[in-house]
Amino acid sequence: MPDFNFPIRVYYEDTDSGGVVYHSQYLNFMERTRTEWLRNLGFEQDALREEYKCIFVVKRIEIDFIKPARFNDALIVSTHLKKAMFASFLLTQSIIHQKTNELLCKAEIKIAAVYPDTFKPRRIPELILTGVKA
Amino acid sequence: MPDFNFPIRVYYEDTDSGGVVYHSQYLNFMERTRTEWLRNLGFEQDALREEYKCIFVVKRIEIDFIKPARFNDALIVSTHLKKAMFASFLLTQSIIHQKTNELLCKAEIKIAAVYPDTFKPRRIPELILTGVKA
Amino acid sequence: MPDFNFPIRVYYEDTDSGGVVYHSQYLNFMERTRTEWLRNLGFEQDALREEYKCIFVVKRIEIDFIKPARFNDALIVSTHLKKAMFASFLLTQSIIHQKTNELLCKAEIKIAAVYPDTFKPRRIPELILTGVKA
Amino acid sequence: MPDFNFPIRVYYEDTDSGGVVYHSQYLNFMERTRTEWLRNLGFEQDALREEYKCIFVVKRIEIDFIKPARFNDALIVSTHLKKAMFASFLLTQSIIHQKTNELLCKAEIKIAAVYPDTFKPRRIPELILTGVKA
Repeated sequence: MPDFNFPIRVYYEDTDSGGVVYHSQYLNFMERTRTEWLRNLGFEQDALREEYKCIFVVKRIEIDFIKPARFNDALIVSTHLKKAMFASFLLTQSIIHQKTNELLCKAEIKIAAVYPDTFKPRRIPELILTGVKA
Repeated sequence: MPDFNFPIRVYYEDTDSGGVVYHSQYLNFMERTRTEWLRNLGFEQDALREEYKCIFVVKRIEIDFIKPARFNDALIVSTHLKKAMFASFLLTQSIIHQKTNELLCKAEIKIAAVYPDTFKPRRIPELILTGVKA
Repeated sequence: MPDFNFPIRVYYEDTDSGGVVYHSQYLNFMERTRTEWLRNLGFEQDALREEYKCIFVVKRIEIDFIKPARFNDALIVSTHLKKAMFASFLLTQSIIHQKTNELLCKAEIKIAAVYPDTFKPRRIPELILTGVKA
Repeated sequence: MPDFNFPIRVYYEDTDSGGVVYHSQYLNFMERTRTEWLRNLGFEQDALREEYKCIFVVKRIEIDFIKPARFNDALIVSTHLKKAMFASFLLTQSIIHQKTNELLCKAEIKIAAVYPDTFKPRRIPELILTGVKA
């Protein structure tokens, strides 16, 4: 399936006194985009939790910070499903600067399905597996 | 009872590209200090939640930002109980710069006790009321 | 001039383990909305800083937290200019739940113009004063 | 040189509505610890910036999230210098739960020295290279 793209604006809260976006904030941008990616496929995570007893947690991240974003920059965050397994997804995500098209950072992120109460691993509900692969 | 003081260091994550601590972050510093104030009185909030079905939420804040803090500054955050009511506390909190002793911001904060599941107001458990007034 | 409204979605990063939006995060939502309010009037704050040596800082906030927002909620944040002075603005801002129209919090916020290097107060550039009153 | 350890307490602001610490927050904990590691070696980063025109930025992170931390947990964050190069450091960092000694997450992090104004790579000042290897 095609990549999913989501626009994010940099506000003061995202920056630090180095004058650029604080490094861990890019992970927040990527998580917002995963939420919108699932929503776009028809999956609301509060409903997934209630109806399927399924929440997603981040298990592993490899991220390269290539060029800094700054206050007021308009960014495009993309999500690409690299591999869907029984109990986890492997995604690649990247952030580009909207105006210049420069790549600011890229990451490979492993997301796992767990039960909300115990955080024990669980199979990804079939409906979601089918949805993300479509 | 005497004021409670708690030291907080400013890290990069707390600052913004204006070069100073991001304004809402001072509220986080104040909340950390309220947590340590309660801990110092013998109250762990995770235990209060489990045993007493009581969590505290912020109902109202009046805060003046007087002078900015910067990266690496050592701060002292103080908490003073102004008034304890049946279901809420009124606290005054302030933040000073440790080295210069300058007042950076001061706030009056109303905290209410609520049930964790419904967020409905509830009486503050007697043990806590007694403890904070001691 | 009419109120300015801006939609904001609640993500995981905005919530805390109480199950609701962390209290200081509403201030971040309000600041994003002030940035968009100025942008909507034609003022980009990075340009204001460069060309006019003017940045805006928060001097005082009075905020009431009325009802909590939760993960995935769609919110509308509004900004209303109550008074424009030589060196500061007084704004009222509120946050409502988009679906239910319930008022979640409301605030009165004083914003001051300062020089970026010294944080000393300065007059608000005429162009901006005219713009926000239009 | 021996590992550097730094204690960090989990506050409400660090958690999300899943009931655990929000994933990117562990990176903030690690960055606080790197700041304290450098301070412990005698290097204040605001002084490094002024005197040496040197700031450190994160270039790459590989992080595994093994077990979640929760509100009120006391954590120990450790920093180990794996390799010091001309213009960058390779560090391994881990977070353990103080009471249970369980490993919560571990990361390999590449930090690069850059000029504060241009963010161009630069050699790490000799004094710092010597200090961190000692």
